Amino acid sequence: MVRSDPGESRTNMPITEEQAAEIAAQRESENTTRRAVAPALEAMLYEPIEVLDHGFVRVIDYMGDDAAIVQSARVSYGRGTKSVQNDAGLINYLMRHRHTTPFEMCEIKYHVKLPVFVARQWVRHRTANVNEYSARYSILDREFYIPEPAQLAAQSVSNRQGRGDVLEGEEAAWVLETLKRDADTAYNHYETMLNEGEDGDPGRDGLARELARMNLPLNIYTQWYWKTDLHNLFHFLSLRADPHAQYEIRVFAEAMLETVKAWVPLAYDAFIDNRVGGAELTAGQMAVVRRLLAGETVTQETSALSKRIWDELQAALAG
Amino acid sequence: MVRSDPGESRTNMPITEEQAAEIAAQRESENTTRRAVAPALEAMLYEPIEVLDHGFVRVIDYMGDDAAIVQSARVSYGRGTKSVQNDAGLINYLMRHRHTTPFEMCEIKYHVKLPVFVARQWVRHRTANVNEYSARYSILDREFYIPEPAQLAAQSVSNRQGRGDVLEGEEAAWVLETLKRDADTAYNHYETMLNEGEDGDPGRDGLARELARMNLPLNIYTQWYWKTDLHNLFHFLSLRADPHAQYEIRVFAEAMLETVKAWVPLAYDAFIDNRVGGAELTAGQMAVVRRLLAGETVTQETSALSKRIWDELQAALAG
Amino acid sequence: MVRSDPGESRTNMPITEEQAAEIAAQRESENTTRRAVAPALEAMLYEPIEVLDHGFVRVIDYMGDDAAIVQSARVSYGRGTKSVQNDAGLINYLMRHRHTTPFEMCEIKYHVKLPVFVARQWVRHRTANVNEYSARYSILDREFYIPEPAQLAAQSVSNRQGRGDVLEGEEAAWVLETLKRDADTAYNHYETMLNEGEDGDPGRDGLARELARMNLPLNIYTQWYWKTDLHNLFHFLSLRADPHAQYEIRVFAEAMLETVKAWVPLAYDAFIDNRVGGAELTAGQMAVVRRLLAGETVTQETSALSKRIWDELQAALAG
Amino acid sequence: MVRSDPGESRTNMPITEEQAAEIAAQRESENTTRRAVAPALEAMLYEPIEVLDHGFVRVIDYMGDDAAIVQSARVSYGRGTKSVQNDAGLINYLMRHRHTTPFEMCEIKYHVKLPVFVARQWVRHRTANVNEYSARYSILDREFYIPEPAQLAAQSVSNRQGRGDVLEGEEAAWVLETLKRDADTAYNHYETMLNEGEDGDPGRDGLARELARMNLPLNIYTQWYWKTDLHNLFHFLSLRADPHAQYEIRVFAEAMLETVKAWVPLAYDAFIDNRVGGAELTAGQMAVVRRLLAGETVTQETSALSKRIWDELQAALAG
Repeated sequence: MVRSDPGESRTNMPITEEQAAEIAAQRESENTTRRAVAPALEAMLYEPIEVLDHGFVRVIDYMGDDAAIVQSARVSYGRGTKSVQNDAGLINYLMRHRHTTPFEMCEIKYHVKLPVFVARQWVRHRTANVNEYSARYSILDREFYIPEPAQLAAQSVSNRQGRGDVLEGEEAAWVLETLKRDADTAYNHYETMLNEGEDGDPGRDGLARELARMNLPLNIYTQWYWKTDLHNLFHFLSLRADPHAQYEIRVFAEAMLETVKAWVPLAYDAFIDNRVGGAELTAGQMAVVRRLLAGETVTQETSALSKRIWDELQAALAG
Repeated sequence: MVRSDPGESRTNMPITEEQAAEIAAQRESENTTRRAVAPALEAMLYEPIEVLDHGFVRVIDYMGDDAAIVQSARVSYGRGTKSVQNDAGLINYLMRHRHTTPFEMCEIKYHVKLPVFVARQWVRHRTANVNEYSARYSILDREFYIPEPAQLAAQSVSNRQGRGDVLEGEEAAWVLETLKRDADTAYNHYETMLNEGEDGDPGRDGLARELARMNLPLNIYTQWYWKTDLHNLFHFLSLRADPHAQYEIRVFAEAMLETVKAWVPLAYDAFIDNRVGGAELTAGQMAVVRRLLAGETVTQETSALSKRIWDELQAALAG
Repeated sequence: MVRSDPGESRTNMPITEEQAAEIAAQRESENTTRRAVAPALEAMLYEPIEVLDHGFVRVIDYMGDDAAIVQSARVSYGRGTKSVQNDAGLINYLMRHRHTTPFEMCEIKYHVKLPVFVARQWVRHRTANVNEYSARYSILDREFYIPEPAQLAAQSVSNRQGRGDVLEGEEAAWVLETLKRDADTAYNHYETMLNEGEDGDPGRDGLARELARMNLPLNIYTQWYWKTDLHNLFHFLSLRADPHAQYEIRVFAEAMLETVKAWVPLAYDAFIDNRVGGAELTAGQMAVVRRLLAGETVTQETSALSKRIWDELQAALAG
Repeated sequence: MVRSDPGESRTNMPITEEQAAEIAAQRESENTTRRAVAPALEAMLYEPIEVLDHGFVRVIDYMGDDAAIVQSARVSYGRGTKSVQNDAGLINYLMRHRHTTPFEMCEIKYHVKLPVFVARQWVRHRTANVNEYSARYSILDREFYIPEPAQLAAQSVSNRQGRGDVLEGEEAAWVLETLKRDADTAYNHYETMLNEGEDGDPGRDGLARELARMNLPLNIYTQWYWKTDLHNLFHFLSLRADPHAQYEIRVFAEAMLETVKAWVPLAYDAFIDNRVGGAELTAGQMAVVRRLLAGETVTQETSALSKRIWDELQAALAG
């Protein structure tokens, strides 16, 4: 299994042995195709990349490669590529000028296991196809996200949606202990309400699954198939692999970024150059940059920018 | 406040007095417009329709009316309507033949308060605009969905996603008691983790909101603005106002159906005639209907239909 | 080259020899993949299926197969399939009950060459990705759709959007002759306005391509890459492979239906059973069916149905 | 009638007297509503803004205002606004950080008359609802876009999709004359093929409308209802009100920009500040800006940027 955070050993495997065997069987399949193939992504195919304590991301299928982007932009009959340098230039141009349709011609499908509160952020991106494991039909597993101590952050005082310093000592210990105990209690009651399986009490009916699940906390794990095109994936990653994103979704986005790098390296480079390392400046910010380049000394007071927008400019210029 | 279930009094108001005052102030606004107006919907505007124990649906804004559907279908310069009878016939024709674009020309915006597990089903409909109350920025209220005793159903034995008989006696009492107690405990710990406000302990930092929320159960209430066009609303209602939908989302859909009736009565009639009261039969089922109409006796064995599809046909023919 | 209408030889090849060579080269590529493969579709890959006089449809890429539908519905770790019979039953169930998300997990990409007036109908289906050949950047070829004599139909007298009898004799000859001559004149002037290439007059500047194209008629051919998921493809096909669709788009839809049959045979069968051979009846029509099955004699007058809806019922019952 | 280009008189009115009367009647309607109202947009409602020689844009309906954006961002019970300054700051923040959902809560519906080749560019924006006048059902009018002499530009030599100098003298005269004559001939033949109305020849059947239209050129006018939300409208305008857009669609976008300014002035200001006057710089371009601000002399050769990306940076810094 590929680890997204290889320095650390985990006691909880995110998959069972039976599931590992199914995955291994799929990885051994070797088919012949006339379609475009991305060898570095093939090497990763089906393999779970471990994320958080019980989650993973794994690529299930994909369609297209860098050449497919070029081919679509040129509406060509063959592969459409000229040279790697030409292709890289064209792909960077398309990204820079937001010609999005050629990137929509590549598609990828993931299987993701993730806490419910992360899933709720994730589905705000509506331009994707989703099939989630159903807690109306099925019984959820006893798996909950419990943060690493290093992630147990206080509320930021400067930023309403950010994190501040890490909790320590007794407070940290109590939080972790409480998260575990409440999850455990809730799950025990979930099982008793369901009253299914060998341990079921024949004297009770058992509550419907679609009702019993309401007792479970938001850090329980769910899983889904999630499929999207490369343009919408980049949009997702630009928001979720960003430092402003909540840590618990960012680690998923970062794992996915690695799959994109293996899949479409030229598009990945263009994305890093334009979206990750680039900057969007407002008209007012650009006016300040021009004054600075003309040799003028500009302060926030003389900039005609608000404190917040001034600070954002300073951050962009610091890089 | 309009009640969706008027026979029963509730002890828990879904809104505060301050919120009620804000709503009352908006209901008193009286503006002049050249736009089309739906008088029966204006009468409902902003008013919460109570759903479940703490939830509501209220219409915040809308655009268009029955005449706008007709006008769009005719791409006309004026209102486009001829007579109510002609308009009703045209609208039914459009619905029957799935000419969907004229229905897309009407838009409605709701404010909804609903349990998180219902919200998770709801957002599977992706063709809508959503703004949800953020538990990263804000603190959720202590409000949880606890089913009425009449809704405390056992798992169906015949249908993996359905409900069976209602639980009774000690089992029912224990379930209700447990749901309440676990929610209460989880919320108490949520507040202690946050450590905010007057009761906060100055000796502790308090956990970030985006983390503390993970301890809350799936029956906590959230709220959002949800906006969609009439075509997609009908699609949502055809699935969620249906007997196969989970009760807890169906009651929201039924409340919304009343707002649609007030808004676009001709489109509502066409929807009931075509989607709610109508039937979709497969090629195999139609073949059986033809044989029956020709006077033949057909049984499941001679029908060439599976048991399940045969039963579905019997249900459709029973009406 | 695969022909959609094999009985007839054409003098105008829709592709050049150079394009045919590029296609042949792609068809010879043989790659190894761990992904699911649809062998019958692989056999068709890249090969143009001839449609109309200069058009074609060809599959460029695809993702998923019948098993991927099953796998998504079950959110499984492996292939998810049990037996062909089980899979067929599950897929039919999903189609029948409009559980659309598993079908969204398969994706296909076509390269299509088609007249502009057909392209204008086609793009009304917005849930697809499109990359069209640009007449701002490039010069269109001298290729126009001229109907076969058998398709030269009069306006229907009973149906405002239908076709009646086929034109004959002098009228037919004049129409064909005029379509050809006007297209030819328009294209000659387009070339002269552009004033490009070896035949260009160095004494003139030449009109911008984005302007000159406005002189071209709606039967000129364009081409695009068009990619969609299986659910949206079925929706497209249910409307465009239908007898009510205009002939010139229907022949494209019929060619695509063959590719779907090769790709996902179980889903194809479910589509034919539910959407093509099935029927959607209104509440009023179902009431009539119930009265007929109870042995009552029902006429349009006693049916409470309008003439039109009555006729549609008769057509559905006739099969 | 409002003119988008008030300096010039036109001989061809884009609407008939009957249509003008229908519009005037709608403008006289005065309804009472509890909904939010945008007074400056009400003043424009239904009124065509003339664009090109026979085209127009007119607002048919709208939903929401600046306060609705604020209200959605805050998920509030009342109007949600605090002060104009606060609201402006919040709206600019939302725009700057691409928090798009609050802008999706406003909706607008236009009636547009436009040449077909412009309509073909326009519908590449798929996140909108469209109802177009049907040339299968109806007969198109004899109205064609003929450019003003000042717009009769040569192909750009530096930019494959741009325009160069304006054609003059005989070449310009010939182009205009040819565009008019070819359109006229094509329309005459269209009418003869249709063979409808009083001038029809009873000895001929007349070609079906859906076929006859294929003889018409791409500069014929069509019309549609087009509805979208404010976020997607801004995306459309950022691409189409841009100098890189073709002039013939840009003038429509510019007319729409005026309606947005009347409708949501704070969001309009944020759009101009962030999208129109702002700049998006790549990682490589930002690195050059930082070196320049540090006092270094940087040339294209020492910049590590390609010639094209260097030139784009110079253009952005020139403003």
